[in-house]
Amino acid sequence: MKHFAPILLTVGLATTISTSHAQQQPNPAVQGYAYGQSTLAKAPYSMADLKSLQTSLLFTEEDVKALRQSKAILADQTDAILDVWYGFVASTPELVYFFGEAKTGKPDGAYLEAVRKRFALWILDTADANYDQRWLDWQHEIGLRHNKLKKNKTDRAPSVAQVNFRYIPALTIPVTTTLKPFLAKKGASTADVEKMHAAWVKSVLMQTILWSQPYIKDGGF
Amino acid sequence: MKHFAPILLTVGLATTISTSHAQQQPNPAVQGYAYGQSTLAKAPYSMADLKSLQTSLLFTEEDVKALRQSKAILADQTDAILDVWYGFVASTPELVYFFGEAKTGKPDGAYLEAVRKRFALWILDTADANYDQRWLDWQHEIGLRHNKLKKNKTDRAPSVAQVNFRYIPALTIPVTTTLKPFLAKKGASTADVEKMHAAWVKSVLMQTILWSQPYIKDGGF
Repeated sequence: MKHFAPILLTVGLATTISTSHAQQQPNPAVQGYAYGQSTLAKAPYSMADLKSLQTSLLFTEEDVKALRQSKAILADQTDAILDVWYGFVASTPELVYFFGEAKTGKPDGAYLEAVRKRFALWILDTADANYDQRWLDWQHEIGLRHNKLKKNKTDRAPSVAQVNFRYIPALTIPVTTTLKPFLAKKGASTADVEKMHAAWVKSVLMQTILWSQPYIKDGGF
Repeated sequence: MKHFAPILLTVGLATTISTSHAQQQPNPAVQGYAYGQSTLAKAPYSMADLKSLQTSLLFTEEDVKALRQSKAILADQTDAILDVWYGFVASTPELVYFFGEAKTGKPDGAYLEAVRKRFALWILDTADANYDQRWLDWQHEIGLRHNKLKKNKTDRAPSVAQVNFRYIPALTIPVTTTLKPFLAKKGASTADVEKMHAAWVKSVLMQTILWSQPYIKDGGF
């Protein structure tokens, strides 16, 4: 697994994620984290659309249970998980590019750090598996923030205009592959780790599909 | 796993897949199967793009080996696999819709059967894992055939205009989840079955990302 050596970027990424992020409520202290805020636009997909997507992904109540089981396991490991994820991004030029300054190509440390704080909350939100209109609207906002429509705005980052679509669903694999050892670190049975991992794969793929919506031509989503 | 009960469509789907499909060369006898044909347009993504996508998917030579190992295991099971996949599609209104006649909504038996023959070859091609320009051009063509640009044309099917994007990456899950028991049927070790399954997940997700290209707004792919 040499890909995952936590080769941290030379810019400072050693953000300490406070334990308060492990709580169930949105953390307004993290800049740009807007889950549940009434200022968000309404998602262009409905709860019925989500249900159909879940059906096509074989996503069931068992997956909801497995995701929720993972929350207590992951809650105090988000910083270590992010070290691995950021290590992968940092060691993959195709990916660190999207955190680069548009003019120089140099990774933007402040931008990386701002995203990282929200990323920690995203782990916990994914584990919460609470699907409602608020959740849909937040997925829509996350998608916009990858797309040229809104990338960089939250953090006023001087970065490249958008994350190319192709890398968004692709990241399902490194995110969930590297998560698996963390799921196994707190004594869950092998069968439960497998279930949690499978639920994470489905959930991340489902989310990345929703995030892709702003990239899709009219009528094609 | 009640989702996978092979509830076959009431239209006749009992196509016998001839063993010749298990051979490595394209099978020109299957109508519309055009892998390797010089008539195909050049893909809008390059081999370098593919390599970057594979990196982001953690797709390595180990996965190529695992896919190729799966070929001999799957070669005489394609018909049984397709019974399960078609059973899932048939029992999922959101999916069978895309095989429906545009006017009546009724599943189009001839269309389903024509696609099924190519689907069997797709299993073997995925297991072959030979990535070159011919392969890229064929992925491009497959993508176009899901999109309104080319859906229905190959089979002159009177069906709905396109498969919505969202279901294309999503199908990675049912395709690979239901494949796993077939990977285990010929005595491979549990570890090898896991490796083959993981390689299939990466390969199918990779292909569905490439197939999504015609859906993406200019510059976003």
